[in-house]
Amino acid sequence: MTAKSHPKALVFDVFGTVVDWRNSIAEEAERLLAPRGVDVDWLEFADAWRGQYQPSMERIRSGGRSWQRLDVLHRENLLTVLKHYDIAIDEATDSAFIDDLNFAWHRLRGWPDAAEGIGRLKTKFVVGTLSNGNIALMVNLAKHAGLPWDVILGAEITRHYKPDPPAYLLTAEALGLPPQRCMLVAAHNSDLVAARQCGFQTAFVTRPTEHGASQQDDLRALHDFEYVATDFNDLADQLGCA
Amino acid sequence: MTAKSHPKALVFDVFGTVVDWRNSIAEEAERLLAPRGVDVDWLEFADAWRGQYQPSMERIRSGGRSWQRLDVLHRENLLTVLKHYDIAIDEATDSAFIDDLNFAWHRLRGWPDAAEGIGRLKTKFVVGTLSNGNIALMVNLAKHAGLPWDVILGAEITRHYKPDPPAYLLTAEALGLPPQRCMLVAAHNSDLVAARQCGFQTAFVTRPTEHGASQQDDLRALHDFEYVATDFNDLADQLGCA
Repeated sequence: MTAKSHPKALVFDVFGTVVDWRNSIAEEAERLLAPRGVDVDWLEFADAWRGQYQPSMERIRSGGRSWQRLDVLHRENLLTVLKHYDIAIDEATDSAFIDDLNFAWHRLRGWPDAAEGIGRLKTKFVVGTLSNGNIALMVNLAKHAGLPWDVILGAEITRHYKPDPPAYLLTAEALGLPPQRCMLVAAHNSDLVAARQCGFQTAFVTRPTEHGASQQDDLRALHDFEYVATDFNDLADQLGCA
Repeated sequence: MTAKSHPKALVFDVFGTVVDWRNSIAEEAERLLAPRGVDVDWLEFADAWRGQYQPSMERIRSGGRSWQRLDVLHRENLLTVLKHYDIAIDEATDSAFIDDLNFAWHRLRGWPDAAEGIGRLKTKFVVGTLSNGNIALMVNLAKHAGLPWDVILGAEITRHYKPDPPAYLLTAEALGLPPQRCMLVAAHNSDLVAARQCGFQTAFVTRPTEHGASQQDDLRALHDFEYVATDFNDLADQLGCA
């Protein structure tokens, strides 16, 4: 089997590739915090929260901490960011409020083509998540954004965070497929390079405003990925989906 | 929260509850083995293969063997049954054929109401599998039978086979829900009793011909389950789904 044989499963990075986390988090944070008198740049708030994402996973990847669900990391990171902004919310008495704000990650908006494009791709392929998000987060997000996944895979199933190889390899194994029959769909060059090193096929989808209008990285594919597409409908077209 | 609060997730037993494994396995076995000159009672063959199911999981439940995917157990059980029937198939040279026959479990037929009923229930609830089948089996089966699951849970996620409590409890935990917000849908009294002991709500669905016309067990609910339905459309009606 060559790397170019037809994939059976398309597995998707989610944050940034499928959903617009930045604007969604900014809006949810404003909706919940502004009534409490908080007045900050909400996009910067979203960036600050997301800025804790890689460091919090890195402590686990490096072996310094046992595996934890992303919901747990997101909540810890939220407390860090609230403290950084001097936003006084009491952990003990406002635990339900903090949970609700933390679950903003369960209520992200899909990019305009996401639900339709995944639905088209689903007619020819198994479509699933290969995200660092945990199962509950992915399930609730799919319900919220109308994402018709066949299966939720990735970090919680494999107990590894991308880009560690087992996150990709154990996802393929759970599907009963060699990595070569799996294709990662992602808007991030680094994720695709890591997947390719595990034997996955790769599809780059451009999300040029994930980080805002002045985004510098991931504006184009930096490697000869099997597919390069402007959005999921373009990818569905290229893969011959009705 | 009482046991009668509204469930958020409906998780389904699959073999017998969602799909007609017996007729499907009989037909697939005949389709693949008859051209090789095998002539047996195909329903008895299906029963014999399924007859190895509980004993093979029991060796794992009892701690005598590490957890294995059901695809592995099904294949071992198939070899046992082929030997019992004196059907000579060489493991070494016919490995692909044995795999194909083994994957008959990935090609089971849904009961007539299954796909539609799950689709209706999906409009109000998270719908997922809580089966002893492994992820690849469940995904391929869902594609084959048009079952619109939100998520595949159960044995492979939890590394426990029902009715061991962790199979239920870790499924609820993966959904981020207390067991009381989960409802098991099953055609088997024993499965529902085990789920209830873990705090799940319960829905019994009658599948009076799972084991053929002379079925004796599970013809009716033997306990006061929260719901008792004749099929998934009846359950969807009772739960107020459009």
